[in-house]
Amino acid sequence: MIFLEKMKWRYATKAMNGQKVPQDKIDNILEAIRLAPSSSGLQPFEVMIITNDEMKAKIKKVAWNQPQITTCSHLLVFAAWDTYTEDRINHFFDLTNKIRGFKNEGWEGYREQLLTIYPKRDAEINFQHTARQTYIAFMAGIAQAAFEGVDSTPMEGFENDKLDQLLNLREKGLRSTLLLPLGYRDTENDWLVNLPKVRKSKEELFTIID
Amino acid sequence: MIFLEKMKWRYATKAMNGQKVPQDKIDNILEAIRLAPSSSGLQPFEVMIITNDEMKAKIKKVAWNQPQITTCSHLLVFAAWDTYTEDRINHFFDLTNKIRGFKNEGWEGYREQLLTIYPKRDAEINFQHTARQTYIAFMAGIAQAAFEGVDSTPMEGFENDKLDQLLNLREKGLRSTLLLPLGYRDTENDWLVNLPKVRKSKEELFTIID
Repeated sequence: MIFLEKMKWRYATKAMNGQKVPQDKIDNILEAIRLAPSSSGLQPFEVMIITNDEMKAKIKKVAWNQPQITTCSHLLVFAAWDTYTEDRINHFFDLTNKIRGFKNEGWEGYREQLLTIYPKRDAEINFQHTARQTYIAFMAGIAQAAFEGVDSTPMEGFENDKLDQLLNLREKGLRSTLLLPLGYRDTENDWLVNLPKVRKSKEELFTIID
Repeated sequence: MIFLEKMKWRYATKAMNGQKVPQDKIDNILEAIRLAPSSSGLQPFEVMIITNDEMKAKIKKVAWNQPQITTCSHLLVFAAWDTYTEDRINHFFDLTNKIRGFKNEGWEGYREQLLTIYPKRDAEINFQHTARQTYIAFMAGIAQAAFEGVDSTPMEGFENDKLDQLLNLREKGLRSTLLLPLGYRDTENDWLVNLPKVRKSKEELFTIID
């Protein structure tokens, strides 16, 4: 039940106290993000880890001035590939062959299939797909943070285009999707910290077809 | 490090042995899905839990005949809201007020803000947003399964429209996004089970801005 306990412990922290998160905890959180599954294993995203105060202040301005942006310890920015390209796909399949030490016919066939479909598709459709994968890694990061006793605030509310500009993401073929400030709750100043978690009932969320 | 261990233990199981997953483990996996965070807390999705053999066989046909669909114990179908409506938004804010036992001006202002923006937006844009939230809950379910010693196969590869028809999802204002067969690995017949996990390096995925 330990994972469920951590899921209950975590909440979207509304006030952080500025305390620094130790590097080993950050490393573990990043490792969980790195290990997260993704469609075909392509990991179509990158993550920026921001501790620079000046940059945090600039980001805060394009993120509705949410205070956690500057009172967090590390700010993670999830940025998805703007599209799938042949190079990006080949890079992953080559990496797989290198790590596994052999070429497999079925796997090479799958490479060809993706190469035939993905790069030709509209970039916006591809981005909608890559963006979704960041949400999987995002949850992995949130969960590992909870295991580290580190608070986090899942955030979608920011001006994506402006953030992309600030971090030169478009030049790197990336588009921002999510922010995750990591830090420690400021218990005295967080209006949410003591409120009960609100979730729909099992009956509302789940339908059994047996 | 326990979460990281579980992340390493899990893999996209390619062959399952048909063994039944006990109900208490299924309940815990669903509870993790229920506790997962979502944008504004709206939980804009439902999950179908399918154990019916006939239905599994039908779904397999619209999911590239992937064998895990029928050799799994429980098949989860994640289905996102087709759009945001006033009713759906109000229902969540009313639930929050009921659980917390009070009305809050700021919170009611936030309700009005969402009511002003979401229901008027194009349904497709709303669906892209609700769909992303299912990926967060998906990862929570995958993680809890690993903690339960239960294997799972994250799947995007199926014909969404046909699955929606099979399960009458559109009539319920839902659209399928993800499948998650839950069961136990068939170690002898799974080509992937003993292959090393392929992930990009930290250097490739992460950029530090300090």
